[in-house]
This record gives sequence, structure tokens and C-alpha cells, in this order.
Amino acid sequence: MRYTLGCSLSYNILSDTTFIFNLEVAKLRSAEILSESLILKPDLKREVYITPDLQNRYIGVNVPTGPFSLDYNAEVDLTVHRADPATINETPIGQLPLDILPFLLPSRFVSSDRLTPFAQAEFAALPKGHQRVNAICNWIHDHIAYQPGASDGETTAHESLLKRAGVCRDFAHIGTAFCRALGIPARFVSCYAHGLVPSDFHAVFEAYLDGRWWLFDATRQADLDGLIRIGVGRDAAEIAFSTPYGNMQPVNQQIRIVRSDGLGSPPQRTVDAISTEIPRPHAGAA
Amino acid sequence: MRYTLGCSLSYNILSDTTFIFNLEVAKLRSAEILSESLILKPDLKREVYITPDLQNRYIGVNVPTGPFSLDYNAEVDLTVHRADPATINETPIGQLPLDILPFLLPSRFVSSDRLTPFAQAEFAALPKGHQRVNAICNWIHDHIAYQPGASDGETTAHESLLKRAGVCRDFAHIGTAFCRALGIPARFVSCYAHGLVPSDFHAVFEAYLDGRWWLFDATRQADLDGLIRIGVGRDAAEIAFSTPYGNMQPVNQQIRIVRSDGLGSPPQRTVDAISTEIPRPHAGAA
Amino acid sequence: MRYTLGCSLSYNILSDTTFIFNLEVAKLRSAEILSESLILKPDLKREVYITPDLQNRYIGVNVPTGPFSLDYNAEVDLTVHRADPATINETPIGQLPLDILPFLLPSRFVSSDRLTPFAQAEFAALPKGHQRVNAICNWIHDHIAYQPGASDGETTAHESLLKRAGVCRDFAHIGTAFCRALGIPARFVSCYAHGLVPSDFHAVFEAYLDGRWWLFDATRQADLDGLIRIGVGRDAAEIAFSTPYGNMQPVNQQIRIVRSDGLGSPPQRTVDAISTEIPRPHAGAA
Amino acid sequence: MRYTLGCSLSYNILSDTTFIFNLEVAKLRSAEILSESLILKPDLKREVYITPDLQNRYIGVNVPTGPFSLDYNAEVDLTVHRADPATINETPIGQLPLDILPFLLPSRFVSSDRLTPFAQAEFAALPKGHQRVNAICNWIHDHIAYQPGASDGETTAHESLLKRAGVCRDFAHIGTAFCRALGIPARFVSCYAHGLVPSDFHAVFEAYLDGRWWLFDATRQADLDGLIRIGVGRDAAEIAFSTPYGNMQPVNQQIRIVRSDGLGSPPQRTVDAISTEIPRPHAGAA
Repeated sequence: MRYTLGCSLSYNILSDTTFIFNLEVAKLRSAEILSESLILKPDLKREVYITPDLQNRYIGVNVPTGPFSLDYNAEVDLTVHRADPATINETPIGQLPLDILPFLLPSRFVSSDRLTPFAQAEFAALPKGHQRVNAICNWIHDHIAYQPGASDGETTAHESLLKRAGVCRDFAHIGTAFCRALGIPARFVSCYAHGLVPSDFHAVFEAYLDGRWWLFDATRQADLDGLIRIGVGRDAAEIAFSTPYGNMQPVNQQIRIVRSDGLGSPPQRTVDAISTEIPRPHAGAA
Repeated sequence: MRYTLGCSLSYNILSDTTFIFNLEVAKLRSAEILSESLILKPDLKREVYITPDLQNRYIGVNVPTGPFSLDYNAEVDLTVHRADPATINETPIGQLPLDILPFLLPSRFVSSDRLTPFAQAEFAALPKGHQRVNAICNWIHDHIAYQPGASDGETTAHESLLKRAGVCRDFAHIGTAFCRALGIPARFVSCYAHGLVPSDFHAVFEAYLDGRWWLFDATRQADLDGLIRIGVGRDAAEIAFSTPYGNMQPVNQQIRIVRSDGLGSPPQRTVDAISTEIPRPHAGAA
Repeated sequence: MRYTLGCSLSYNILSDTTFIFNLEVAKLRSAEILSESLILKPDLKREVYITPDLQNRYIGVNVPTGPFSLDYNAEVDLTVHRADPATINETPIGQLPLDILPFLLPSRFVSSDRLTPFAQAEFAALPKGHQRVNAICNWIHDHIAYQPGASDGETTAHESLLKRAGVCRDFAHIGTAFCRALGIPARFVSCYAHGLVPSDFHAVFEAYLDGRWWLFDATRQADLDGLIRIGVGRDAAEIAFSTPYGNMQPVNQQIRIVRSDGLGSPPQRTVDAISTEIPRPHAGAA
Repeated sequence: MRYTLGCSLSYNILSDTTFIFNLEVAKLRSAEILSESLILKPDLKREVYITPDLQNRYIGVNVPTGPFSLDYNAEVDLTVHRADPATINETPIGQLPLDILPFLLPSRFVSSDRLTPFAQAEFAALPKGHQRVNAICNWIHDHIAYQPGASDGETTAHESLLKRAGVCRDFAHIGTAFCRALGIPARFVSCYAHGLVPSDFHAVFEAYLDGRWWLFDATRQADLDGLIRIGVGRDAAEIAFSTPYGNMQPVNQQIRIVRSDGLGSPPQRTVDAISTEIPRPHAGAA
């Protein structure tokens, strides 16, 4: 499916500020970037860095005092991998590849160690596999209220769980935390999301099952097969769309994504298991 | 300087347990491994993984019920890089290489975002450079009591700061947090430590200054120039010497390190700035 | 029912220490104290204070360096008030007497404000009355593991809930918190508890229903009709059996309670609603 | 000094709501109430309760759906007790009256137990007495930023301390916490405050020194000798000006206090120690 997407951010810079942005579409085999442009005003020198393992695209810019805006546009052709959820199993910890370890351990906002008693009590007895992670998403959707203002940039998964409220960032953190607490590697995903109203950067998560990273969205707010990845990481700390160091005021922020292939959206959300990552062979101790 | 070091761990495995160990000496140019052996009893198949960026050596072992022991020995020739602390400066954020970002952001136990008001109030006015990080270590040493039992595996830097007590793990987390709060990249280091009494795995931290990672130990308990790195990471969550998944009881644990070149230790601890990492050129937006 | 009970505490006092004890049986109409003795060694001057509202008996003693022991014995005749739980209703907040307010508000360890989303989600739809509070106790008993060492003197109700583990103090805090979150006044009770194994000071809670304070024990470890109250308060902070100010080491602690009327205990725990407080008329806005 | 003061609160009640208000001037010997009126619209039946020990005046009102307003006015003649701070000493714990215990122990927002290491490190060596508590206020004023929005109704003293920001409620909680951590009984005070701009309910604290409760205001925002007490308690949980149970929207809130004796205010804030409570004899173990 073809999408036209992008974002426009504007700021008033009060003192020299370094920005680190992560908002460009990740270069995945599943997401072919047909065209792309990034325009800064003023047109400043930028440093570009792509993490070798996760393919996150970071841009560093030093911005002087005054107005500053960033305009990103891309046309992307997304081909997701679909499968029957019932066929997707979990991998015993002893057979997981060791490089997946960062996504099994707790991180700044994914306090999976603190949530382990709860997750074990609630989900340990469920049949394993994609269905179990989907049950986790259903539990989150049924028990956590989507409530802008219920959290901030320091809220952890266990705090959101206690408060029973949060936004997409928190839904993704709780889902990731529950998975890790059950021995399922999981990671936080930032993305452009077709079907999300109002339009915004979206946060979902991926769980590693049967050698592949599968997408999950506990908010149930966007099309699971219309998610264009920006970044993946342990949690929101790693892939904020903007990390500023300096004194500045955000002025405006607009995120957009539309279908551009003339095809309509299906009337119902997909029930397929969806992945946008290539599978990987996993070596493990037998 | 030459060291003979190692560790012996024994367990009683109650049900099949997967261990992920990180306890072998990291292969750095500064730490030449003259000989090394790892003996497991029973002699089980092990999976080996070395993180490509940080060179952490992980071993994965699936251990069946019954007794289990691990014995690691190595002889290491350590050549540290020394410099006059007064000559080592901080790098403005806008000139830091973007791949250092993970060590500027908060992580599971290094809650630098929550400690920023405190760190700014306490240290922002100090002259920048190695001396500032050393002042941080002095502050920690003077204000935090070394108190086994004051923390556990879930304790974060801000909790240790409030409690004014902790162990080496917590001292290193607080030091790392303060640095990150001031815009100095910092990372957690696990190591064998000459001079540490009683002998144990030790935790210190490194701060990135003037293109190099420099060692700091806020506990002041070991020889700064006698630290042999095992792992580096965002914090203790990433490089626990042992991460078990299963039901087991630790039986015994012995860590050892002695000088083996026949030379005595200097009567006083070094005041040099010490690094065991090669320098790196850093690319940044001018 | 007649009970012989008491406690023996011994300490090694390292520097002058002020103790405030709350361990004598509360003088309730339901608990007739037939005989009582308190022996201190050395035999120090003690200050006695009984809170006018809640009848908590505090003893203040200033103890010099050296060995110190306290021995308390009492013979008590307990006559509980029994009722059919199905007949006991909740009182709408608008009709509660205002002096009950302290037991509706959050306190140091009873973080009822933080637990309100959870309590509302879990219990709001249950039929109101004694049965609802009993359902709360059942939930706690089924979901929280009784685990010495899982908490300490600073653990709050929401922390115990997250950890899914605690001791009697934490079970009582969670029960009290859930009640307050539902608008049911509730308070923490310390007591001697017949049937508790191993013998110890016990913590339960009371909920205010239909003009009376009714006892509840979420641990299900003692006879509900064999609880002899020591103190009541907002939470454990108010009625610790011992609050020391000074440098001392506890040496030994023995708590005891046996039936002394020659009658055996019934084979099964009671299912009656139990109260040891006289009823009170409540004035409320109609 | 004579003051005309009061408050006007208006609400839109969405469903039947029980309010418990604590906003009338406390009847102290030092604050003679010359005239007073409380007007509710609609004119509803109210329940009145005055706590026997602390003299807090609570009003309970059940308000039906629709608009609701409360208008309170009073004229008060305040005669404070002044003394030279240098003459006011602390009382050793062993000589404090036992009924002061609630103000030595931690409470919901005054997490003095968690702040004890910090308070001991910072203030233990200071000369004891009124001057030490004043030094505590100076420390708070210098280190905590007055920042509306930095806290909410669940923020505890140690959280405000870590954040280094808060409002009057938090300044009072930290001051109370530090005192309790040093063995100085302290309590939270809500009041009308002359000199406070913008006008609002104010929060300060009192410390028990030399048999008397002395006022302290770490915000330094109001006249210490122009504080008219509404309530005292362990912390803000006990004496919120309004505790609502129901679904309602606050519409408007106006608090006012002016000098009404025609005398001007002195050009500078007083440096006297100020108390509005009568002294009390204290019995203690010699």
C-alpha cells in the first residue's frame, strides 16, 4: 500500500539549542521509500547517524536563536507480511539468540522487573504464542483508559498500570513490559500510523515470536497494517521524535499520513498477524 | 601490569534454568588476555555472543536440574592510558557524535531525567572537564554511605540518592546519572578490581571527555589503574554478571584478582586520569 | 472467651534510646482485662498516654545504655459482637459522621488515592455491604503472596499491590486502601491474634459499616473472633508496637496468646461478621 | 491586627456531590472572630464538626445537580505571640509529651522516614532551636523553585525534594518532613495569609519548640504575623479546603484578606518568632 506522509514542526529558539530528531521513515525492506525530502529553515548543517543494528535514523542539528522549522515528506510503499496468528509460537528463553537480550531486560520506562508478579499472575496460564500477546493487548485496551495528560515524559509502565490511564506511549510500554515479564522479547516502536485520529506520531510495540518481530497496538486506534516505522528501541527514551538540549518553545506540530494509491481502506481492521521486519534465523543452545 | 584473575560460581539448579553470563574479560587493546579458560560442570554446550559495538562477551547456557558450577580464569596484561586530569575537557552536546546518544539518555536504573534538577543545582557551576566528574565522585563518596543491604536489584539512582546509601552498583549509577544530567555521556562498567576488599565483582563508570572514555570510581575502594573491564552498558540491567531464567539457588561465589608480575602496588592510589579504551575521533556539527 | 497473652521483648541499648511502645491491650468494653502486668528491666520511669478518641495506650520510656527488657502479661475476657454479614450495609458518604473523615482519607502507607482506579475497576460493581469488603479480602488473599521479606517499614499499599506480595501489615494496608477508595471508612488494627502461627503481633483492619466497626483479616491466618486489639489508627505508622529513637539492637521478641478457659477452638473459622467495638449513632445530613 | 477575609467558591454540580469543607477561621484565642457568615446557594442543610483536639472546623454538605456557590466572610482580630528566636530551644524526644506523637511520625505526604538520611546529613550539625528550623526554611527557599504545576494532589515531600520544585503545599510538606526527621514535632497549617500575592489559600507549617507551636513559612511569600489559621494536621491530606465526593466542575475561586484597622503594614517582614497557639505544659519522663 502506498502512503504519502510527513511532519512539520516549528519552534521558537530562545538560546542555542541542539536537537536530535528521529522522525524519518526507517529504511526497511518492507517500506520502500519512493521519494523523501527534509527541509530545515534556516537551512542548517545536519549530522546524520543510522544505528547499525536497529536502523534508526537520527539527525543532529545545532539551531541558533530565532524561528526554526522542519518539514519532512516521504512517499512510501509498504508491503507487510501477514500470517495466521494461531500458527505463531513463542520461543523458549534457552533458544533465543543472545543478541535479543536487550529486549528481554527492563529499561527506563519498561519496568518489566516490577511488573513480573502481575504479568505472571494474569497471563502465565494463557496459551502461548501470538494469541497470548494479543490477549495482553486486549487486557490493556479494556483496563487502561486512553487519557491525554495522565502521563508525562517520566512515567514508567508500572506507574501507568497503577493509574489505569495513559496515552499510546504508555500502552506500548505496558505491553512491552508484560511481554518481557513473560520471557517474550519485546521492543517499543515509533511510527506514522494510518487511521489514527487525530493524526500524531504513534507508539506501538513488537514482540519476537517464531523468529520474527510482530506488530501489536494495544490502543486499537490505528490500522495494524498501516504502520510505517520510524524507530525501534528498548522504550520511548531511545527514540523520542525530538530530543532538545537548550531553551526553546514548540510552536506548532503537524503529522500527516494518507493513502496515495487510490485504494480505499477495508471496512474492518485486520485480524492478521502483521510484521514489517524480515525474519531472522535464530541460533540457540539445543 | 599483569594480573591473574577469575571467578568461581556454584549453584543448585532446582528446575531447568537458562543462564546468561557476562563475566569474561572484555577483549580490549589495553587488556591483553595472555591465557583464559572457562570450565563448566557439567560440561554443557554454551552459546557465545559478543556485542559488536561494546564488545561485551555473553555466554548462554541451559542447565538441567542438579549441581552446576562455573570456573573462569584468565591472565591479563593491562596497559592503561594516563593523562593529567587538568587537561581533559568536556565536549559541548552539539559536537558529540550521535552514536553516543544512548549514554546521554536515562536508562532503567540511571534515572538522570529525575536527577537533573539536583545535578544542575549542585554541579552546574563547577569548572568543566575531568575535574568536574571527579568532583561528582567526591560528592558521592562524601554523601552516600557504602551499606550492603541498602539496595537491591531494582534500586534506581534517585532512590539511592534519597536513601543516601548503597553499594558499588548504586555509586556507579548515581555518578552516571549526574554526568548525563549535565550533558556528559556516561556509562556503567562492570570489572575485576585490584585492591577491592573484600574481593567481588566491582561496578564503576566511565565518562566521555575529549574523545575518550575515562574511568571513575565513586566508592574509592579499588585501584583506578587496576580495573579490568568485563562489560559496559547503560546500567546494571545490561551487564549483570549472571541473568538466570529458572529456579535455582546460588551456593557459592568467589571472585579473585592478584598482581602476578611480582611488582608491588604503589603506596598511594593514583591521581591520574585513567582510560582503558582507545580514543575515537568524533564527528559533530560545527 | 478467655485468653492469656503477652509479649517479651529484649534489646541491647547502645546509646540512650527513647522507646514509645503500643502493645498493651486496648481497654474496650468487649475485652475485659482481668489482670495485667508490665515489667521493665531495669525498672525505669515510664510515661503513659491514652489517646482520648481511639483509646490507644502508649508508653514512653527513656532507656540508658545496656540491656533492656520488657515483659507484658494480661488475662483478657473477650466477648465479640456477631452478626449475619448479609444484613450489614454500607453508609453513603453524605451520611457518614464527619469525625470518620481521617479513615476515608489516604495516609502514609494507605495510598488509597493512588489505588482508586484499580479499586473502582475491580470492586465498584460488587453488591455493597459487608460482603463487598469480604470480597476485597478474598481478592487480596488470592492475589497477594504472604512473603516475609517482601516489604519493609516504608512499603506502601500500592507498592505491595504491584509486588503482589507482603506480610500481614501489607495485607491490612491494601484492604484499608481498597475500602477507602470505595468510600468505606477503614482503619488499621494491631492485635494479639489467637490461631496465628507462628505467633506474632498481627495486623488486620476494620471497616465502618452500618454504624459499627467490623473486623476483617485478608491473611485468613487467625481466628477473626480471637483478635484482641492493641491499637487502631490510619495505618501502621501510627501504632507500631515499638517506635525507638536511638541506637539499639533488638535481641529477642516473643509474643504469645492461648485460650485459658479450658474450651477448645471450633474446628472451623467463623463466617460471622465480627466486631469488638460498641456501635455508634451517626449524625449525617439527610 | 484586624483583618477582613473570606472566600467565594462556585461549582457546577454534575451529579449529587458530598463536599467536606475546611475553610472557616479556626477559633483560637489569638484570632478573635468579630463577625462571621457562611452563605450557601442553594441554602442547603450542613453538618458541622469541630475536631476536639485540633479545633479544625469541618462542614459537610450534600449538593444536588446544578450550580452551587459558597461565600464565607469573617472579621478577625489577630494577636500573635512574638519572641526572640534565639531564646527558643528544641525539646529532647524523651521529654516530648506523648500526645505529640502524630506530628513526629511520617504521614501521607510528609515522607519524613524517606527523607531522614538527607535531613540528618544537611541539618543535624546545626545549632538546635528555632534557628535550626529557620535554617531549614532558608534551605528550602534557596533550593526549591516555586513552580505552579510542578506538583499535584498526590505529590509527596520526597518527590518535591527530588524535583526541586513545588508550590506552598510542597514547601510546607518538605519543612514538616525535615523537622520530623530531626525529632522536632511539626504539623501542616492551612491559612488565610496577608501579603500573599496572588491571593490564595496558603500552606505553612508549625514546629513544636519549647512547649509552643511556632509558625514557619518556607515560601517567604506572606507576612508571618499575618497568618490566620484555618486548619492544622499531619499534612495536606487532612485539611484540604475542599474534599468533594461526586462529579463536579469548579467554576470560580476567590480568596481575599485585607487589613481593616486602618494601619499600614511595616515595610519589612518580621524577624520575630511567631506563634498563634497558647503554650502548653509538657509532661515528660525526666
